[in-house]
Amino acid sequence: MKMKINEIMNNMKVDAIYVTSIINIRFLTKFSGSEAKLICLKNKMILLVDSRYYTQAKKQCHECDVQLIEPKNLFTKIAELIKEYYIKNLGIEEDNMVVQDYFILNNFMNNNSINTKLLPLSLNKIRMIKSDEEIATIKKACHITDKAYEHIYKFIKPGISEKEVVNEMYRYCLDFGVDGLAFNIIVASGVRSSMPHGVATDKLIEENDFVTIDFGIIYQGYCSDYTRTFSIGNNPPKKLVEIYHIVQEAQKLAIKNIKPGAKCNEIDKIARDYIEKFGYQDYFKHGLGHSFGLEIHEAPYLNPTDETVLQPGMIITIEPGIYLPNIGGVRIENDILVTENGYENLTNLSTDLLKINN
Amino acid sequence: MKMKINEIMNNMKVDAIYVTSIINIRFLTKFSGSEAKLICLKNKMILLVDSRYYTQAKKQCHECDVQLIEPKNLFTKIAELIKEYYIKNLGIEEDNMVVQDYFILNNFMNNNSINTKLLPLSLNKIRMIKSDEEIATIKKACHITDKAYEHIYKFIKPGISEKEVVNEMYRYCLDFGVDGLAFNIIVASGVRSSMPHGVATDKLIEENDFVTIDFGIIYQGYCSDYTRTFSIGNNPPKKLVEIYHIVQEAQKLAIKNIKPGAKCNEIDKIARDYIEKFGYQDYFKHGLGHSFGLEIHEAPYLNPTDETVLQPGMIITIEPGIYLPNIGGVRIENDILVTENGYENLTNLSTDLLKINN
Repeated sequence: MKMKINEIMNNMKVDAIYVTSIINIRFLTKFSGSEAKLICLKNKMILLVDSRYYTQAKKQCHECDVQLIEPKNLFTKIAELIKEYYIKNLGIEEDNMVVQDYFILNNFMNNNSINTKLLPLSLNKIRMIKSDEEIATIKKACHITDKAYEHIYKFIKPGISEKEVVNEMYRYCLDFGVDGLAFNIIVASGVRSSMPHGVATDKLIEENDFVTIDFGIIYQGYCSDYTRTFSIGNNPPKKLVEIYHIVQEAQKLAIKNIKPGAKCNEIDKIARDYIEKFGYQDYFKHGLGHSFGLEIHEAPYLNPTDETVLQPGMIITIEPGIYLPNIGGVRIENDILVTENGYENLTNLSTDLLKINN
Repeated sequence: MKMKINEIMNNMKVDAIYVTSIINIRFLTKFSGSEAKLICLKNKMILLVDSRYYTQAKKQCHECDVQLIEPKNLFTKIAELIKEYYIKNLGIEEDNMVVQDYFILNNFMNNNSINTKLLPLSLNKIRMIKSDEEIATIKKACHITDKAYEHIYKFIKPGISEKEVVNEMYRYCLDFGVDGLAFNIIVASGVRSSMPHGVATDKLIEENDFVTIDFGIIYQGYCSDYTRTFSIGNNPPKKLVEIYHIVQEAQKLAIKNIKPGAKCNEIDKIARDYIEKFGYQDYFKHGLGHSFGLEIHEAPYLNPTDETVLQPGMIITIEPGIYLPNIGGVRIENDILVTENGYENLTNLSTDLLKINN
């Protein structure tokens, strides 16, 4: 972990990085609180926390020098560290630090005659390849998510509201000790399934509705992210059954081609081209997938422009979809681990069209 | 709502504001999705969403001109709008826009010979005074939270883990149709109660533990935020009972003084001075409280430096605490609405020391 950070420091020619993203701080230090700052030197990490978190940080962050600060003295402390460690070039997280803090820090340094340069850089790629420990945790999150879908398949029936579906799935997951939901859960039934991001409402599920559930949990800090679309009853609209099979096949083709060396945009293109063959390309507007971990959306992204090369240890979603306005939609999403030889499917649910009759 | 925004535009001398905070966008437009951008003109709001959210935005945002964009064309679109509406000075959200986006937007404008100035400003204060509709929703969130505490008072007993307490409270709330938890719930029992932000762990609750629960939910987008500390059994440590009564009285004194015209730092000082009388000032290190609404922490803040004047319609927490290392701690937190004549207590739970014997 420290090696990757040192690589970034060398590439960007900085002596230290001021880490502000609480997710990156958690990744680097194991600190799980909601507020902290981190100064990352080449051979040392200094974690700055206020009194709310001092005891906790001392317990969690064995690799860090944990220092107590008063939030109002943050920049004074940083100035002290800059002097103590002769920091000439300080990296800042350009995709996390807000404009206001950047200007304040800049001004503070100018006013105190500190000549250190602030160099914008991104750390988010340090989380792209998951460690064995992270993979094990995500596998557990996926296992719980498998169970939650199996449970809801038995529970769902006409007359139940979309929100009640979310609640029942979550209730079920609570017994596994999950931390929370990974995002605003999507349950889109009937015509609403044409909305790729239709968050669950009070709408009641009806006989012959197509229902899309996009559900994920957080387990020990790590996310899962699944989608399944299925039919309530035996007589779903024919058009939707037609696109279901196209989406299913597009997903299978994309997954089959996952292996180290393949590029994200190439995998995206495989699914997109298949959907185009049937003329539905204008109804699949989002990317094919994304990585996830401590955050629900992480680099790399599977879309037409991300050329990241897949490597063992990356975990990605594969989630093609077709959405027909005023008719309905389909999305199928699996979580996939890139392995030395190809891939491992972390989603142990069939992708065949399920017709539910409870 | 638009009036407040126009006031900011006039004060900051901008023709338009590029709103990037999804929370501020929700507040201004009612859009509840996870991604959008907003251009706010003096007499018009233009909401930019991608295809995932177009149908939803059209339904939710009656006061907006909703326009579909491809995310990669965002800045081109903004350049078009700048030209179309002759925007010379464009406000940007300094406390939301990240450094990277600021530089990209700046470069894009330079490269396209757009002379529009980007002026950093903050919109967060537009949410300080809650509308009647917002107050009604927060009252419902508080009512559900009252019920959740009453429920857990009957449920909690030695041998139950801190995490199970959270889960049971949340399970109970799900039946009220809550959206989720407002933050990482704190359940800190025994010596752990000395950690002001001790997120629930697998630790089992024991006889004669002091237990602090800091719990809040999100209901129709709006938060609640309560804390109670209580004793399991009849024989809690005497030192903790002593500080309990100090914290309780500090909170009462602070609440009594809430009224329009009082300043946030004055209210903070009332509680802080009372705690100092007993020599515990070094064990109460955090602010006395904060506002909340669509976010769990909003302006104004009750601390020694925030001089904001309280006004009717503000909703704030009052949460003094004393934390004794290696012994334990106490925090009591109520949600309070500032009214024309003083205040209304939204937390309908006693603050007297509860000794639970289940």
